[in-house]
Amino acid sequence: MTSDLVSRFLAGDRRALARLLSHVEDRTDLGRQALREIFSHTGRAHTVGITGPPGAGKSTLVNALIRRYRDLQKTVAVVAIDPSSALSGGATLGDRIRMMDNYADEGVFIRSMATRGQLGGLSLAVGGAVHLFDAFGFDIVLIETVGVGQAEVDVADAADTTIVVQVPGLGDSIQTIKAGVLEIADILVVNKADRPDARQLVRDLRNMLLLGDHSERMPPIVPTIATETEGIARLVDEIAAHRAYLNDSGTASERVRRRLRREAIQIAREQFNLWLLNWERDPSNNAVAERLLRREDDPGTVADHLLDRYRAGT
Amino acid sequence: MTSDLVSRFLAGDRRALARLLSHVEDRTDLGRQALREIFSHTGRAHTVGITGPPGAGKSTLVNALIRRYRDLQKTVAVVAIDPSSALSGGATLGDRIRMMDNYADEGVFIRSMATRGQLGGLSLAVGGAVHLFDAFGFDIVLIETVGVGQAEVDVADAADTTIVVQVPGLGDSIQTIKAGVLEIADILVVNKADRPDARQLVRDLRNMLLLGDHSERMPPIVPTIATETEGIARLVDEIAAHRAYLNDSGTASERVRRRLRREAIQIAREQFNLWLLNWERDPSNNAVAERLLRREDDPGTVADHLLDRYRAGT
Repeated sequence: MTSDLVSRFLAGDRRALARLLSHVEDRTDLGRQALREIFSHTGRAHTVGITGPPGAGKSTLVNALIRRYRDLQKTVAVVAIDPSSALSGGATLGDRIRMMDNYADEGVFIRSMATRGQLGGLSLAVGGAVHLFDAFGFDIVLIETVGVGQAEVDVADAADTTIVVQVPGLGDSIQTIKAGVLEIADILVVNKADRPDARQLVRDLRNMLLLGDHSERMPPIVPTIATETEGIARLVDEIAAHRAYLNDSGTASERVRRRLRREAIQIAREQFNLWLLNWERDPSNNAVAERLLRREDDPGTVADHLLDRYRAGT
Repeated sequence: MTSDLVSRFLAGDRRALARLLSHVEDRTDLGRQALREIFSHTGRAHTVGITGPPGAGKSTLVNALIRRYRDLQKTVAVVAIDPSSALSGGATLGDRIRMMDNYADEGVFIRSMATRGQLGGLSLAVGGAVHLFDAFGFDIVLIETVGVGQAEVDVADAADTTIVVQVPGLGDSIQTIKAGVLEIADILVVNKADRPDARQLVRDLRNMLLLGDHSERMPPIVPTIATETEGIARLVDEIAAHRAYLNDSGTASERVRRRLRREAIQIAREQFNLWLLNWERDPSNNAVAERLLRREDDPGTVADHLLDRYRAGT
């Protein structure tokens, strides 16, 4: 079953890709097994994370990037991470990207993923989707997410190059830029650069960067007008330049090494959590809760017992 | 070392209590061991969670509750959970409670805990603090937290009785009340009930409650003016009534059973995560990352290897 789907995937069948993406997103056993089988085909794509506040024009930017990459004969896949439905208010990020152009283009694949409550589940789902796109042969994998805290950091973890999009006129300029966001940026984009206070924002960002520790490499600031595709060619050049920097400095290997090790750890944690969940749901373990209630056992001792049972494989 | 501190704790030494609270908050081995040793002394205190939006007057309410319980000859401990320093803006919740009255009173103990980035660490720290206060002999343990998402649910998990505080005039009345918050409320408090739109808020809350599933027990709505201590006596009566309901209906045992089982699971998870962290930091495992980088192993296989090693105890 798995091998058949994987074979079709490796032969370039887009429907097999779509089905495997669903399995990876839902963290099914089949999805996990497929990721093992296709992993040796990964390692060629360049992964670009794009994050920033709502209203920064990220979807338009992603569209402009897709067009530019297609002009350069590069294939592009997109993972659009949607915040919970309450926030997105209707159309998903992926929908908004798709709406802009009518992609019958075989060189483009767009996938939306919803952020669900699962602990660490999204991070594994996004990482898995990136592996699938990579193994399928896409040259560029874009990961788009709305900048809401932890998600930004996760994107930076999953991407080779992280682009942080800022936009003039969102509140009090520099005060709205979260401190941690600049630290994860490999490239800063000031989108909607035709707005009056764009120059000031560029100056503010530069000053903030000068305060930080960027002794190895100062992130460039790229003004864009994504709706007009202005600045997009330079942005693509900066992405290529960052990729070259990563390779030349040895940082690329270090990032990938760390990322894959973290992924292995997350998978181990996921497996352990599944085992715990089964234990919690198993009615034959009610006696344990009873002993806790009667204070005959303490939670720490039960935890030891749990870990012993896990170790014993029972 | 542990036993000495625990002995002094069990003999009623408040400094030993304070030191153990620090160990439990920092999740040290000593703290974990102490919790095992004192656990058989727990199970008598009634734990009351108090949550609500910033500005609802929770600290004032906690102060008024402390005074009322002291008048009734009950001893009271408080765990005040502070959101990250950026939000609290100076004085901690515990400070604000302490500022109101000058407690030289031996029947009162107040402890602030900061929410830190640790996965699940706060929940275990709060649960541990409650165990300590319970074993020390406090009759009532109040857990105060600012209503910011997951923390509310954690408080409801840790408390026998959960009080959700609402206040008139915070935005558009009912729209600001988060849906999930009513589900965890055993008692609703409308504080600052002398404000003009308080009656409307009470009506709105009642209508919202009627829409929900409260077939077993409808949470009472208690109007209070905490600064004037109005409504506080009734609130204390409602807490006692809820406790009686929990005991009579058998819900008390069920809640405690679930809570202690969950705590055991969290401790097991914490232990496993510590093991993973050590593995990640151990330079002798660099070869594993190297094999991942060269695509000789996939993350799923490394996860299996990790779990095997954990099981083998190496």
